[in-house]
Amino acid sequence: MPLTLDALNTAPTEAFVASLGAIFEHAPWVAEAAADRRPFGSVEALFEAMREAVVAAPEARRLALLQGHPELAGRSARDGTIAAASIAEQAAAGLDRLSEGEYARFATLNAAYVKKFGFPFILCIKRHGRASLLWQFEARLTSDAARERQTAETEVFRIAAIRLDALVAGEGGLRVTGRLSTHVLDTVTGRPAAGVAVELAELVGPDESVIVARAVTNADGRTDAPLIGGRPVPIAAYELRFHIGEHFRRGGLALPEPAFLDMVPIRFGVAEPEGHYHVPLVASPWSYQTYRGS
Amino acid sequence: MPLTLDALNTAPTEAFVASLGAIFEHAPWVAEAAADRRPFGSVEALFEAMREAVVAAPEARRLALLQGHPELAGRSARDGTIAAASIAEQAAAGLDRLSEGEYARFATLNAAYVKKFGFPFILCIKRHGRASLLWQFEARLTSDAARERQTAETEVFRIAAIRLDALVAGEGGLRVTGRLSTHVLDTVTGRPAAGVAVELAELVGPDESVIVARAVTNADGRTDAPLIGGRPVPIAAYELRFHIGEHFRRGGLALPEPAFLDMVPIRFGVAEPEGHYHVPLVASPWSYQTYRGS
Amino acid sequence: MPLTLDALNTAPTEAFVASLGAIFEHAPWVAEAAADRRPFGSVEALFEAMREAVVAAPEARRLALLQGHPELAGRSARDGTIAAASIAEQAAAGLDRLSEGEYARFATLNAAYVKKFGFPFILCIKRHGRASLLWQFEARLTSDAARERQTAETEVFRIAAIRLDALVAGEGGLRVTGRLSTHVLDTVTGRPAAGVAVELAELVGPDESVIVARAVTNADGRTDAPLIGGRPVPIAAYELRFHIGEHFRRGGLALPEPAFLDMVPIRFGVAEPEGHYHVPLVASPWSYQTYRGS
Amino acid sequence: MPLTLDALNTAPTEAFVASLGAIFEHAPWVAEAAADRRPFGSVEALFEAMREAVVAAPEARRLALLQGHPELAGRSARDGTIAAASIAEQAAAGLDRLSEGEYARFATLNAAYVKKFGFPFILCIKRHGRASLLWQFEARLTSDAARERQTAETEVFRIAAIRLDALVAGEGGLRVTGRLSTHVLDTVTGRPAAGVAVELAELVGPDESVIVARAVTNADGRTDAPLIGGRPVPIAAYELRFHIGEHFRRGGLALPEPAFLDMVPIRFGVAEPEGHYHVPLVASPWSYQTYRGS
Repeated sequence: MPLTLDALNTAPTEAFVASLGAIFEHAPWVAEAAADRRPFGSVEALFEAMREAVVAAPEARRLALLQGHPELAGRSARDGTIAAASIAEQAAAGLDRLSEGEYARFATLNAAYVKKFGFPFILCIKRHGRASLLWQFEARLTSDAARERQTAETEVFRIAAIRLDALVAGEGGLRVTGRLSTHVLDTVTGRPAAGVAVELAELVGPDESVIVARAVTNADGRTDAPLIGGRPVPIAAYELRFHIGEHFRRGGLALPEPAFLDMVPIRFGVAEPEGHYHVPLVASPWSYQTYRGS
Repeated sequence: MPLTLDALNTAPTEAFVASLGAIFEHAPWVAEAAADRRPFGSVEALFEAMREAVVAAPEARRLALLQGHPELAGRSARDGTIAAASIAEQAAAGLDRLSEGEYARFATLNAAYVKKFGFPFILCIKRHGRASLLWQFEARLTSDAARERQTAETEVFRIAAIRLDALVAGEGGLRVTGRLSTHVLDTVTGRPAAGVAVELAELVGPDESVIVARAVTNADGRTDAPLIGGRPVPIAAYELRFHIGEHFRRGGLALPEPAFLDMVPIRFGVAEPEGHYHVPLVASPWSYQTYRGS
Repeated sequence: MPLTLDALNTAPTEAFVASLGAIFEHAPWVAEAAADRRPFGSVEALFEAMREAVVAAPEARRLALLQGHPELAGRSARDGTIAAASIAEQAAAGLDRLSEGEYARFATLNAAYVKKFGFPFILCIKRHGRASLLWQFEARLTSDAARERQTAETEVFRIAAIRLDALVAGEGGLRVTGRLSTHVLDTVTGRPAAGVAVELAELVGPDESVIVARAVTNADGRTDAPLIGGRPVPIAAYELRFHIGEHFRRGGLALPEPAFLDMVPIRFGVAEPEGHYHVPLVASPWSYQTYRGS
Repeated sequence: MPLTLDALNTAPTEAFVASLGAIFEHAPWVAEAAADRRPFGSVEALFEAMREAVVAAPEARRLALLQGHPELAGRSARDGTIAAASIAEQAAAGLDRLSEGEYARFATLNAAYVKKFGFPFILCIKRHGRASLLWQFEARLTSDAARERQTAETEVFRIAAIRLDALVAGEGGLRVTGRLSTHVLDTVTGRPAAGVAVELAELVGPDESVIVARAVTNADGRTDAPLIGGRPVPIAAYELRFHIGEHFRRGGLALPEPAFLDMVPIRFGVAEPEGHYHVPLVASPWSYQTYRGS
C-alpha cells in the first residue's frame, strides 16, 4: 500500500527517514536532509528536495553515493548482499538468470568500468531491455570522466524517482512510467476485432526473442490492461504478434490455405521509456496498417 | 534457347519425339501420339494433345506412367538414376540437402504411400514450399484410392505443363508461372523509396526460415526483377523483410535510437502458385501499410 | 437540471405526472398509469412501465395517441400550437426554416399520409438528417396500414425515450444517444496532429451541405468534445473536412504549391444513430487513411 | 501524323520552315536559324537549336517575339486573328467560354500587364488549371521588369516545347507531358476492384468543379488509359470520385443504408505538370487509404 504525502509530512523525522531512506541506495542522509524541508505540496516537490540534497552534498559524499551502488549482474546481486530494491530490479531485467558466459562478459565490463571511473556502472535498468543495457554499458565505457560522472548521477536520480513514485501515492506522480498498448480493428465488418490473441516479444538478440506479455482482445478490440503499463517501457526492439487469421476464419470468411495473413508481426523500437506507445492493427484478410497512435 | 512451335510442327516425327519425349516422365509414347496431330496453332493446343493422349491410353499404360515417377527425396534422386528434369526439380526444392532424419521421414512416407496406392507419391514440387510438400504428403496418405489416382494424374499434368512451357516458346504460354513482386513507397516525400534492401524468406518451420531472394529497390521503388517470377510461386508462408530504417536515415530524417521502424517484416501466405502476389510497403518512419496488390 | 429517479419515486402522483406528462405527446395518462407502479430501480424500468401502459391501453386511446402528434413542418409548428418539445425538435432539424417550396412539399406529403393512414406522419426526427427524413416520408407513404401503424408506434416510443433520457438522470440511461468523433495522427512525426481545423458537414442534397460542427484538434489530436454527442447521430451522409495542409506547413515541411493534400474530405454515411462513429485521419503530406474505429 | 526527324533533317529549308515556322508564335525566323544547324540527332537537339536561336537574337527581335503573342482570353482569340495553335490552346483551357464578367476581369489584367511590361501576359496555359492561371496572372503583375521578362521567355520556350513535342515523333521526346492515373484495390477480396466508376473533377473555384475525365476500372482495377496523359497535367486542385459503395454491393456484401462509404472523394493538388501522379484507392467498405504512388 503506498504511503500518502500527508502521512510523510506529519511523521516524526525518524519515521520519515525509515520510509524514504532506501530511495537513494545506501544513503539515508538524503532523506534526512529532505525531512527538514517538509511539508511538501506534491511528490514532485519532495523528489526535488531530495535531488537538491544530493547536489548540495560535499563532493566526497556524492562520490560515495555512486560508489555505494552494486555492480550490475555482479557477485553481490547473486549473494544477496545488496539493497532489496536493487535485487528486484536486476531480477526483473533478467540479470539473475544470465549464462556463465554472460556473467563473465559483465564481470569484464564491470572491472574495466570501475578501474576507469572509480565507481560501478550505474544504469536505471527498468528503462532498458537486455540489448540496450549491454549496448549502454559498452558505449559508456568509452566516455570521459566528467561526462560519465554526470551521466551516472542522472541515472541515480532516475532510479530514485521510480522508487519514490512507486512508494508514495500522489496525483500525477513523477511521470516516470510509460505505456504500450494496442487495438485491433476489422475493416471487413467495421468493428473492433474481439478475441484476437496477441503476444508481445522483446527482441533480445539477432535471432532471439522473449515473450513479455500475452493478451486476448476484448469486445472493444483492446486488451483489458496495457501490454506494458505502470512502469517505464524498456528501451528495446519489440515484436507484436497478432493471430488475425483465426479471427477472420471465426468470422466465417472463406480464406485460402495458407491464408494471406495468419500471424501478423509488427516490429518496432521503443526509445522513450516514459512515452505512450500505442500500436494498433487495422486489418482485413488481405491488408493491414499500423502506426504509432496516441 | 526455347524451341519454336514452327520448328516442332515441321520436324520429322523422330526429332519431335526426341524434343518432347521427356515431358512426361519415362513416357515418350505421349509425344509420339501427339506428333500425329500436328500442326499445332499454340502451345496450349500441343499440350492438350499430349494430355488427351494420356487420357486415351489403356489403363495399364496410365498406371505405368504413374509408376515411372521417382520417389521424392528418394535413393534414386541421390544416385542420379532418375530423369534429369526430376533431379533438377528436386534439387530446387532442397530435397537433395535433407538431413538424415528428414531422409528417413521421407523414406517412411514413401514406403507407406507405395504400399497403399501402388505407385510413388507424385507432386509437382515446383508448386510447393518445403512445409507444404510434407503437409501434402501426409494429407494424401489419408486419401482413398480413386481420388488419389486422380490427384496423382493431375500432378503429372502439372509437372508436364511446366516442363513444356519452359521448353517451347509461345505467346502467352501455358500460364503455369506466377509472380511475387514488391514496391516501396515513402509517404514522407511522396516518392518511391530507392535503395531499400529487401529479403524474401520462406518459412520452412515454426522457427526456421530460408532466404530465397534478396534485392535492392530501384529508382521506382521496385526490384528490377520480380522476387519470384517465370515459375510457380511455391505454396508456402513467406516473410518479406524491408530495411526501411536505413532508408529514412539516409533521407536525413532524425529518428530516435532505436528507430520506431527499422526492419519491417511482412508475413504472408501463398496459396495460388500461378497467381500474382504483389506485396507493397507504403511507409513513413512511424506507420506502414501493406496489401495484396496487382 | 435533470430529475433524479429518487425524487420521482417519492413524489406525490400529481407531481410525478406533472414532470413526465409530456414524455408522450398530449398523453399524460401514460405517466398516470406508470405512477402506480413505482418505485423504479432504473430509468429503463420507468420507461418500460410507460411503454407497457401504452401497449395495454384500449385501441381508441392508442390511436388517439398517434393522432395527437403534430404534422412535421406543419402549420401548427409555425403557429406554436403544438407541444414545446415538438417545436424544439422540429427546429433542431431545420424544419422551421424551410423554403415555401419545401413547406408545400411537406404539406402535400402530410395530406396524403393522413388521408391514407388516419394519423399524421410520426418520425423521431432527432434520428434523421434532412435527406433521410424526406426519404422516410416517401417510403412510408407506400407502406400498408398494419405495418405503418406499428412503425408509427415504434417512432412514438423512440421520441419518448429520448425525452425521458434527457429529463431523468440515471446511470447508463436509455442508450438513445450516439457519438461521432475523430482523431488526427501525423505519420511524419509519429505524434497526434494538434491545432488542425476540422469541419463536419451534413450533405443535405446532391450539391448542398450544411456545416453542423467545427472544432480544432487538441494536443492529443482529438477534439475536446465529440463532434456529435449526447444525442442520436442523425441518419445522413456527412463529410469531415480536415485542414491538414496547414498543419504540415506549420510543422516546417516544404510542400509544393498547391500541396498534394490541403483540405482532406472524408465522406461517410451514418445508419445507426445510437452507434459510435469514430472516423480518424492518419496522414502524411502524401498519404492518408481512414476507417471506422471505436 | 507526326513528322519524323529524318524527314526534317533532309527537307529543303523552305519545307523545314513551313513545318516548324509556327512553333514560336509569329516567328518563323527561329526555324530558319535552326535549319542551318541540321542534321539533328534528337528532338532535344532540334529544340535546343531553336532555343539558342532565340537567345542569340538581337534584343529588338526577342522583344518582338514576346509582343507577338496574343492576349489571354482577349479579343483576338474571339475574333480568330491569332495563331491556330493559340486558339486551340486557349479553347482547351476554357478561355473561349468565359462569362462576360470573367472577360472583363481578363481585359483589366491584360491592360494593366501590357502597360507595366510592354508585352502581353504569356503563360503556357496547358500547364495550368483555371484557378492557377488567374493566380499566376495576378502574381506576375506584381513582379519587376527584369524578372518578368525572363519569366515570359521561359513560358515562350515551354509553349514551343509542347508544340514541337506534339509535332515531331522522337524517342523519349521533350519530356513535356505528365500523367494522372489511378488503381482501385478491394481489400475484402484481395483483388483489383473492376467496374468502379471514377470521375476526375478540376476544382476551378471555392465551390465550383468541372468534370475533366470519366472512366470505369478494368479487370486490373485500373483505367484503360490514364485519366490525364500525353500532355502536361494542369497545375490545379483535383478531386477523384470513386463510386465504391456500388462495387461492394455488387460483390454481395450486406452494407447498411446509407453505406459507410459510398462515393469516396480524394482531393489533391498537382504542382508538377510533367510529373506522374498515381493516386490509388485501397478500400474495404469501412476503410480506405490513398497515397501518391508511382
